[in-house]
Amino acid sequence: MNYLKKVVLVIFCINFTLCALAQKHPNIMVTRAGIEELRKGCNDYQLLRDSYQEVKKEADKAIAGPVSIPVPKDGGGGPSHEQHKRNYQNVLACGIAYQISGDVNYANYIKEVLLGYAAQYEKWPLKHPKSKTSNQTGRIFWQILNDCVWQVHMIQGYDLAFDAIPAGDRKIIENKLFTPVVKFITENSAETFNRIHNHGTWAAAAVGLTGYVLNRPEYVEMALKGSDRKGKSGYFAQLDALFSPDGYYTEGPYYQRYAILPFVIFAKAINQYQPELHIYDYRNKVLEKAINTSLQSTYSNGVFFPVNDAIKDKTFESGELVYGVDLAYSEMGGGADLLDVAQKQGKVIVSDAGFKVAKDIAAGRAKPFNYRSMWIGDGNNGKEGGLGILRSGSNKDQQCLVLKAASQGMGHGHFDRLNILYYDNGSEVFPDYGAARFINIESKNDGEYLPENKTWAKQTVAHNTLVVDQTSDFKANLNEAQKYYPDLICFQGSGDIQVVSAKEDKAYPGVSMTRTTALVHVPELAKALMVDVFKAASEVQHQYDLPFWYNGYITDASFRVNAFTGQLKAAGSNYGYQHLWLNSENTVTEGAGYITVMNNRRFYTTHFAGGTSLNVKLVSLGANDPNFNLFNGKAFILSQPKAADQTFVSVTESHGLVDPVAETTTNAKSNITGLKLVKDDENQTRFSFQVKGKVYQIVVNYNDRKNFIQLLK
Amino acid sequence: MNYLKKVVLVIFCINFTLCALAQKHPNIMVTRAGIEELRKGCNDYQLLRDSYQEVKKEADKAIAGPVSIPVPKDGGGGPSHEQHKRNYQNVLACGIAYQISGDVNYANYIKEVLLGYAAQYEKWPLKHPKSKTSNQTGRIFWQILNDCVWQVHMIQGYDLAFDAIPAGDRKIIENKLFTPVVKFITENSAETFNRIHNHGTWAAAAVGLTGYVLNRPEYVEMALKGSDRKGKSGYFAQLDALFSPDGYYTEGPYYQRYAILPFVIFAKAINQYQPELHIYDYRNKVLEKAINTSLQSTYSNGVFFPVNDAIKDKTFESGELVYGVDLAYSEMGGGADLLDVAQKQGKVIVSDAGFKVAKDIAAGRAKPFNYRSMWIGDGNNGKEGGLGILRSGSNKDQQCLVLKAASQGMGHGHFDRLNILYYDNGSEVFPDYGAARFINIESKNDGEYLPENKTWAKQTVAHNTLVVDQTSDFKANLNEAQKYYPDLICFQGSGDIQVVSAKEDKAYPGVSMTRTTALVHVPELAKALMVDVFKAASEVQHQYDLPFWYNGYITDASFRVNAFTGQLKAAGSNYGYQHLWLNSENTVTEGAGYITVMNNRRFYTTHFAGGTSLNVKLVSLGANDPNFNLFNGKAFILSQPKAADQTFVSVTESHGLVDPVAETTTNAKSNITGLKLVKDDENQTRFSFQVKGKVYQIVVNYNDRKNFIQLLK
Repeated sequence: MNYLKKVVLVIFCINFTLCALAQKHPNIMVTRAGIEELRKGCNDYQLLRDSYQEVKKEADKAIAGPVSIPVPKDGGGGPSHEQHKRNYQNVLACGIAYQISGDVNYANYIKEVLLGYAAQYEKWPLKHPKSKTSNQTGRIFWQILNDCVWQVHMIQGYDLAFDAIPAGDRKIIENKLFTPVVKFITENSAETFNRIHNHGTWAAAAVGLTGYVLNRPEYVEMALKGSDRKGKSGYFAQLDALFSPDGYYTEGPYYQRYAILPFVIFAKAINQYQPELHIYDYRNKVLEKAINTSLQSTYSNGVFFPVNDAIKDKTFESGELVYGVDLAYSEMGGGADLLDVAQKQGKVIVSDAGFKVAKDIAAGRAKPFNYRSMWIGDGNNGKEGGLGILRSGSNKDQQCLVLKAASQGMGHGHFDRLNILYYDNGSEVFPDYGAARFINIESKNDGEYLPENKTWAKQTVAHNTLVVDQTSDFKANLNEAQKYYPDLICFQGSGDIQVVSAKEDKAYPGVSMTRTTALVHVPELAKALMVDVFKAASEVQHQYDLPFWYNGYITDASFRVNAFTGQLKAAGSNYGYQHLWLNSENTVTEGAGYITVMNNRRFYTTHFAGGTSLNVKLVSLGANDPNFNLFNGKAFILSQPKAADQTFVSVTESHGLVDPVAETTTNAKSNITGLKLVKDDENQTRFSFQVKGKVYQIVVNYNDRKNFIQLLK
Repeated sequence: MNYLKKVVLVIFCINFTLCALAQKHPNIMVTRAGIEELRKGCNDYQLLRDSYQEVKKEADKAIAGPVSIPVPKDGGGGPSHEQHKRNYQNVLACGIAYQISGDVNYANYIKEVLLGYAAQYEKWPLKHPKSKTSNQTGRIFWQILNDCVWQVHMIQGYDLAFDAIPAGDRKIIENKLFTPVVKFITENSAETFNRIHNHGTWAAAAVGLTGYVLNRPEYVEMALKGSDRKGKSGYFAQLDALFSPDGYYTEGPYYQRYAILPFVIFAKAINQYQPELHIYDYRNKVLEKAINTSLQSTYSNGVFFPVNDAIKDKTFESGELVYGVDLAYSEMGGGADLLDVAQKQGKVIVSDAGFKVAKDIAAGRAKPFNYRSMWIGDGNNGKEGGLGILRSGSNKDQQCLVLKAASQGMGHGHFDRLNILYYDNGSEVFPDYGAARFINIESKNDGEYLPENKTWAKQTVAHNTLVVDQTSDFKANLNEAQKYYPDLICFQGSGDIQVVSAKEDKAYPGVSMTRTTALVHVPELAKALMVDVFKAASEVQHQYDLPFWYNGYITDASFRVNAFTGQLKAAGSNYGYQHLWLNSENTVTEGAGYITVMNNRRFYTTHFAGGTSLNVKLVSLGANDPNFNLFNGKAFILSQPKAADQTFVSVTESHGLVDPVAETTTNAKSNITGLKLVKDDENQTRFSFQVKGKVYQIVVNYNDRKNFIQLLK
């Protein structure tokens, strides 16, 4: 426990009851101190005005309809579930509308809803009729998680309408509703409440916010330090354990974005009620780092890197990050480049934080979001692998290369050690499939993860990384995979050669894998070259397959493609290979060649060299998919059928332009020629190629961290 | 010959030499009368300023480099070809830059280039070394077409620099270059010059513009009336023959856009020098109609309907239509909605016309482009079939349904009688493949049409129309297909039911085909339903396949999809079927069902009914494609294996919303149920369905044009 943490805990004990005497409402996202300028801002600043109008529309719709509090009955998506969800959204919207407009109709709606719940809540059974387990059941919803989210909204709505609710009614609401809700969360759902897990954070936030608003220091203490108040669980423990020191959440960016919301809402409340805790400084500002890391885990179009289970097309416009960005900017000292993100989000929270953001945007303070090359360490100590991100170019036309060398990431993790993702020109060049799921589409497995998420999306071959003997990392065994993580060898995020290199020795028994991937600028070319060296070493012979999943169409290759014409067969029977149609198989006896792909009006030529004769397989996705659950996908696979050691070197050039309106095509041919492997042993890989005829050599020195990679002319 | 045409010809004979005395330069796109305000406009109006800066950049680059006039040697794309092309682009750019800036360096460049050509032109052989024919050879380029385009540019550049070129040099340029060029076009290339064809129009424009600028009435007369000056060929004859009375160009929208350019440039010159010809009024304003028809042949995203050979993604931003739109607006009385198109084009011609457009846009006069439902007749008399276009909704979220019932359209035509294209929500819902071509990509058949254009793209099964016995219309025989065209039965382009219906009896011997396709509004739904009735009648039994090519992913179906898992086979061996992988084949014994497709965040459920048991085949594109020349494509095919008469009825609902950022999905399920065929004979097709439980019947009365289609509640 570091010094600051000790201070926090000591201050917490002596100070809270004193502060609490000065109880004011509202005092979380919207505060009494800030309300006057917030009201004015809802007129003056477009982003805030638009955001408020959206909230008000929702609130107006709520007060125009009847109050409905059905007896809990249905599972997720069912009518009673949806009504309870609408209720908490309505209450929060009405709370904001009341504070901004002063119209008591909104407050009365909140009062009626809360009294309605108070009249029934204690009559409802402790186990929801649709719950499958008794330790994760909610009382209002089928899962305790939803009950906690419900409470986080309701208590904020109550805080916002507090002054307009008669004291007698407040007493009923506090005693017959909020107190039993907290009891249910902290006692009946103690397991979730004390869990070091995202669900635990929602529970802590629900109980902690309630403690502040109701002036119950014991609730706050439990929320911060667990139900036994010893600090092994609760909010502080979650902040300690769930993020790496760099603010990385082990499940990956898609879930990081989701996990962040209860953390930041509760942090705001802590900062309001107990500023002396300096919660934003906690663990070297880990919260701000988590928000920033979340943003840095997107490509320049705002889409999260879809590593592990991830719904693609999810962007930083997501509601959770509206909270994150607004608070990071207004309270945690975030830079003016966050305003760029807020502009793209197109909305702010109607709150003190949103006011500052909208005001500063209106004042023209926004700067382009500062995408950086960075290594983001994974694991509680930051040493359990991580995500290497290299970037080059402006946000408008950015090259971005990601090496996934993080730990497994629990149940949502994919078996994709040393996977790369490559982006350019606003598009995915070498994409990751993400998760196999049609979220919320009932006809597709009720909107849940599809069977193909396991049989395809998690398997190694679904990624841009090495497959040994047509199996998957750790034979796709989660428990095994959880034990190990790759090691970072080198990260260099600036200069003409940006590089990240990592090593994984455990994914395949007896096979040591090292991947070194780089963005390399040469003066002859405007865009950086994407350079990739994948080295596998073993005592015995294996089949080594290195897939490159690509978007677009192959327009050229150094070999004759010669696709199968009248019939297709699946490429294998297991570990994802059963989902591949084998379209073509080519022997490249010289062990080197190229493939050009046209994608989003640009060309990508991947020159490859493997030392000895290689197979190049062209595959497409869709075999053994009886229900059409899989999306389209195409890959070229560099394949070494039998070798103990194998190194695949590739140089991918981004070149040319297709203008379909002017019908012009320029530079469809790559400027690179003659890639060949010059030397390759355990200390060094050396290869050469020509750029517009000029010879270059690249040397990777595995045991020399100072001169790890060199570009020789 | 109508009255106006007679007047035109008479006026032409008596009047031209008088006018010519008042010779002024420049006097085509840029005029001496307009130059002062044009110069000012290049400062004042953003669109004009940006457009001028682009031209100036090109001109500056030209004058900074050396003048190079290589001896003609290479074919298309080769160095000498590209240099001559650059030369004429440079000359035109420098001409404009000279007029706007007054900087004589630009004019001197033009003088040098033209003198350079004058010194060599007559030494070059009459047949280009790379020409394959002696009647289509150019002298500067391998094809006469390119020489004509060259001259259209050069003569404009000369006109623009005229006043700055000393009289002695002008004499050399006119005598040693332009006169021999005209001689070459009109005599050596007389066949092209007198051809009623797009190439003939370029030739006419080249010769006619030269006549005006050099004050040679005999050139103008040849250009207008053919080399024998009898009017059977030349510009007037081309205007009479190449467009239908509605301004439709028989090859289709993609080539229409291309064909339009020489027509409008020459028209502008005619109007400058001989306003008394009222060229814009010629043939009931056929030129303005051609421009307007070209714009109306786009979806609301500006992309041309890709019927016949067409490169997809080609939009009205195309340079030819910048000329068309600017001139239609400024000279032909076009409406303020053309300014919307000009804004989307993002540029104007730096000319009198562009000045007016940019000025009026700056004054805020633009209105949204007025997309209309319309029937566009094909053929010289407008009675040889046509294109039926139905639209519903604002330009931002427009449904657009196109029935292609036009004639064959010559060599670039596809065998797709009664094909439909359907768009919604900014996207293709039931797309047309367009042409199989990677334009200008050398590694793909030198950028020319691919072999698959014949074996796939032109074949009937590549389209959304009926295939009889797995063959193509007219057995894909162009000469046969050219003889016949479909007949329009009914077009109704407004109201709650918009419909177009047409008949084709000749495509398959003994099979009469009638297609009736409609957009139908019912009060329960915000979007129109797309209703389609395809009726085939024969004395003998046939296999009837009706494909619906779709974008996106199938998310639901009334039957179990049950795709083939470990192996795929081509669906046939000829007429395009050899390129289909058969993914799944399902018998729908009840003869009715539905398929739901998710496409661009919206759902499309096609309910279908065919009276008796049907097969539904799911296919994807890519079989027998050894070189990976084909794009992705997927279709569901409603298939009747054996019947004499067959009617396919379908109702496609556009519904729901997928929001990947908020992760919400609404209305994924269609609101339509119970589609069934109630009655079907030669006079009437009657079918019923329910919308949110409410029963509707639709009746199509084939022999009652007044009550052709009825919606009964």
